[in-house]
Amino acid sequence: MEESTWGPDASYVDTDPSLQGIRALFVFRPETAVPMRALAQQLLRGPSPLSPGDRELIATYVSARNRCHFCASSHGGAATALRDDDETTRRVFAGEDLPVVDKLTALLAVAAAIQHGGQALEPDIVAAAREHGVTDVELHDAVLIAAAFSMYNRYVDGLRPHVPDDEGLYVAMGQHLASDGYA
Amino acid sequence: MEESTWGPDASYVDTDPSLQGIRALFVFRPETAVPMRALAQQLLRGPSPLSPGDRELIATYVSARNRCHFCASSHGGAATALRDDDETTRRVFAGEDLPVVDKLTALLAVAAAIQHGGQALEPDIVAAAREHGVTDVELHDAVLIAAAFSMYNRYVDGLRPHVPDDEGLYVAMGQHLASDGYA
Repeated sequence: MEESTWGPDASYVDTDPSLQGIRALFVFRPETAVPMRALAQQLLRGPSPLSPGDRELIATYVSARNRCHFCASSHGGAATALRDDDETTRRVFAGEDLPVVDKLTALLAVAAAIQHGGQALEPDIVAAAREHGVTDVELHDAVLIAAAFSMYNRYVDGLRPHVPDDEGLYVAMGQHLASDGYA
Repeated sequence: MEESTWGPDASYVDTDPSLQGIRALFVFRPETAVPMRALAQQLLRGPSPLSPGDRELIATYVSARNRCHFCASSHGGAATALRDDDETTRRVFAGEDLPVVDKLTALLAVAAAIQHGGQALEPDIVAAAREHGVTDVELHDAVLIAAAFSMYNRYVDGLRPHVPDDEGLYVAMGQHLASDGYA
């Protein structure tokens, strides 16, 4: 994944420079922040057959493929905290294959297709997921998480709010997201 | 824009066949439908310096570029009804240049960049929008509409719910969206 190439003072809109990433955008336009936060909370923490940690991994994977450093790092931090597994997050972040082919890798393949575009989710990818026992609701949730991060990533990278340079801040942000969620 | 190539019976998840498009998905998973509808209502009908008709045009443009026939046709219908201007909708739907270069075309250029990806919104595109008087909030709203339709389009085309074949139904759907919104 490439690093963001813009600096901390390149924000396209006049956000509060003491706030970073999507939080700065949420404060700039609170009207749209309310449903965007509610969607993240429902998608990543609400009732689902997929664990919050696996859902955060899907979010991390899509964000890394979109080269959204802020989203990939913060959700990667949350995935690591929730799954207590730094190595899987590292591989997903880097786009490396996971050592075991299972339901999670089948769902990541679904997410990769959706990151590319809706039509890219071809029947053979869905069939492979079904072979790993993926249910309708699991397929739905993986597709919608990947679609939603196609939005969040574009929102952050498009408007270029200030983002942290310090990787340690992303670890702390991920731990906060793991414990407190998005509500 | 290419037509969808799948038929009415190819839905990947077990949606109600009497419902079509995103409505079938909203009924399948009402938990995520609530914030997704609230976001559409705020983005396309809520307070904004951009008119609801121009916001629907941006949604139509992004959906057409993503080849999401359902979204482009229904939001195109809403744009036509709200702006009372079928020819502009036709051009935006077809990806043809508009005859007058103004704030709207500058915002469509912003949306085209975001449809491609967040990093594609280069400073020169923002500078051109500023020359046409685009404010921070207008830029923000155009970016977020384009980002949000990067989600809605992938959601519909990814899960392949039943969609109407009859173009007249999209006109009626657009008129309904124009009068009643998304709430």
